[in-house]
Amino acid sequence: MTASGLLEEIADVGRDGKRGGYSRHAFDAPEHDLRTWFVERAQRLGLDVETDRNGNLWAWWGAPGPDAVVTGSHLDSVPGGGAFDGPLGVASALAAVESLQRKGFRPVKPFAVVVFAEEEGGRFGVPCLGSRLLTGTIDADKARGLRDQSGVTFAEAAVKSGLDAERLGADPDRLALVGRFLELHVEQGRGLVDLGRPVAVGSTVIAHGRWRFSFEGQGNHAGATLIADRADPMLPAAETVVAVRRLARTHADARATVGRLVPTPGGTNVIASTVDLWLDARVPGTGTPELVEEIRQAAGAAAEAEGCRLAVTRESYSDDVVFDAGLRRDLGGWLGDPPELPTGAGHDAAILSGFVPAGMLYVRNPTGISHSPEEFAEVDDVETGARALAEVLERLAA
Amino acid sequence: MTASGLLEEIADVGRDGKRGGYSRHAFDAPEHDLRTWFVERAQRLGLDVETDRNGNLWAWWGAPGPDAVVTGSHLDSVPGGGAFDGPLGVASALAAVESLQRKGFRPVKPFAVVVFAEEEGGRFGVPCLGSRLLTGTIDADKARGLRDQSGVTFAEAAVKSGLDAERLGADPDRLALVGRFLELHVEQGRGLVDLGRPVAVGSTVIAHGRWRFSFEGQGNHAGATLIADRADPMLPAAETVVAVRRLARTHADARATVGRLVPTPGGTNVIASTVDLWLDARVPGTGTPELVEEIRQAAGAAAEAEGCRLAVTRESYSDDVVFDAGLRRDLGGWLGDPPELPTGAGHDAAILSGFVPAGMLYVRNPTGISHSPEEFAEVDDVETGARALAEVLERLAA
Repeated sequence: MTASGLLEEIADVGRDGKRGGYSRHAFDAPEHDLRTWFVERAQRLGLDVETDRNGNLWAWWGAPGPDAVVTGSHLDSVPGGGAFDGPLGVASALAAVESLQRKGFRPVKPFAVVVFAEEEGGRFGVPCLGSRLLTGTIDADKARGLRDQSGVTFAEAAVKSGLDAERLGADPDRLALVGRFLELHVEQGRGLVDLGRPVAVGSTVIAHGRWRFSFEGQGNHAGATLIADRADPMLPAAETVVAVRRLARTHADARATVGRLVPTPGGTNVIASTVDLWLDARVPGTGTPELVEEIRQAAGAAAEAEGCRLAVTRESYSDDVVFDAGLRRDLGGWLGDPPELPTGAGHDAAILSGFVPAGMLYVRNPTGISHSPEEFAEVDDVETGARALAEVLERLAA
Repeated sequence: MTASGLLEEIADVGRDGKRGGYSRHAFDAPEHDLRTWFVERAQRLGLDVETDRNGNLWAWWGAPGPDAVVTGSHLDSVPGGGAFDGPLGVASALAAVESLQRKGFRPVKPFAVVVFAEEEGGRFGVPCLGSRLLTGTIDADKARGLRDQSGVTFAEAAVKSGLDAERLGADPDRLALVGRFLELHVEQGRGLVDLGRPVAVGSTVIAHGRWRFSFEGQGNHAGATLIADRADPMLPAAETVVAVRRLARTHADARATVGRLVPTPGGTNVIASTVDLWLDARVPGTGTPELVEEIRQAAGAAAEAEGCRLAVTRESYSDDVVFDAGLRRDLGGWLGDPPELPTGAGHDAAILSGFVPAGMLYVRNPTGISHSPEEFAEVDDVETGARALAEVLERLAA
């Protein structure tokens, strides 16, 4: 059981014929197939798998208990995402357990492989939803009411998947079992490529959040309505996209993106009545809310100039995270001083780091591209990463 | 059988709970229900209904033959459209036949009520597709290959609806039967409201067309990709929306709209790999291609600046139309000199006017809004319109 062999087993699950890559979203059919696959593979290793109240899977090697060493990642993807973001960490964790078992190791500490639900927020809009719920970082009622694009709530989808909607939310007893959390992940940039190294230790995660900008105007006929008579929400939405780029450039190292924009009704010969766009903003340090406020002001002015209304909703926000210094020092020492890298990507490990010592390992991605079918990792690097994970898990669990 | 009563009968067909208004698209379930309703109502009037090779419905009052008087409109809608655009002309035609029958009139000339397929282009992108096919204004192979948003071709949908894909296309024998074509339609502006009149005769239709702008960049992670490393197609797409408005203002009386814009994959935390947008452009006279070329150049420059590629496809284009002068004079005389109004909206009557004398009647719309749930006509005006239609049909068919 190698990490790359495990990834091969799921290579056909959830392919997106339209966008390319994979679309595997929380509680949908492909993600369900991946959960079934995980349970079967974990059970083959003799692990006991349970689903927590929030839909996260926990595969215990031995009895559950406090001060547990926990590793894992997620199996869901962004729409049209790559094969590695998430599954690499899960497959590497299973492969690491298998290699440790093969050499006769038995963990002294409680030990679990975890699969977090809805890490990408690809279906319900809030990233790291499973770890946010576990840690109580999101209000349970807010989470229950999140809707996917068809209007299905997270609570409804959770119930359909066998969960109890009433029990969704903070799970302090379970969280109290976690002693250390370690997540292996494909790198989502060119740090390791540029350094010529296969594996890095994570240092920081940039603050990040999502805001929904809803512009409301007056739907009308595209041919019969004079330009002077229009209140077309597409205009301030487009001006906002342009402002996002312009304003992001004024904040050092900021990233700000509009990747999702939905005009309604969306007909070619129809002036839209509403346009919703989602801003993903990330500024190192504490500058994210300031950047978003600047964008909000530009959007508001553009909306007003067109006679449109604007409503802005914060869907999520997480502060800058610095991973546990002691764990980073240990990981670095055990792995022969690999590079430390910051990331602009959010992770369940960053959510957990507010509650328990948490850390990350990154595996080289030769394209530097992620959230895209071009995301990649060479087989040799995948196996090097899985060996590194096994190495540090053996030390942590001893 | 009144026109407003007939509209009432179909008031629940194809309601769009998400967008508001109606979504009734070529060969979908609501449009199929409307066709069934039309056939049943026409048969109750003793009309013989046939479906032509392109999916248009023809209800003959008496035997088909040359120099026929033909009236009608369409039953499909834009996404989230109003209740009147299309159905008002069909309902008024049926009501006119019924009132003429009631007073004992029998047409001397052949007489038909027609329902054209896919007038809005809401499913397959090309407006007036049924009349374009009938008249040979669109190549049959091009039409067969048009795809809806799920990838279904027009040919596939037509076959599923009982048509023969091989026989789609120009239908000169049928076209040769049409002596005059008259379409009644809700007004899509405030002309009649401002004049305080219930009914107008159509004078001209502004040239109009649709172009697809496809921007291709590099999909990537919204958090891990530095601004300087991006080729984000959302940027040139947004700059194009802004340029459309700016350039439209430099052409007298021009209308140019982006009502549909689709980023792929469309994830919040994903830089899009492609963005498609559709330009609807209409300039009185011959200026439309010039405006589109100016927009294409602005879009191309924006794409290049972001490191993206741009492909522009013309999906349809129709020249300015002036409705038949003799028919306009007759309509005006018979109806007590109603106002004549131009329109920026395309119609099947405008397509047919290239082949047979064609004309239009407009019915007052108190909101001036169309292609929106707010589109409206008062019952009194609907009945006034239907009576005017009966009046002129009686003269034309005598």
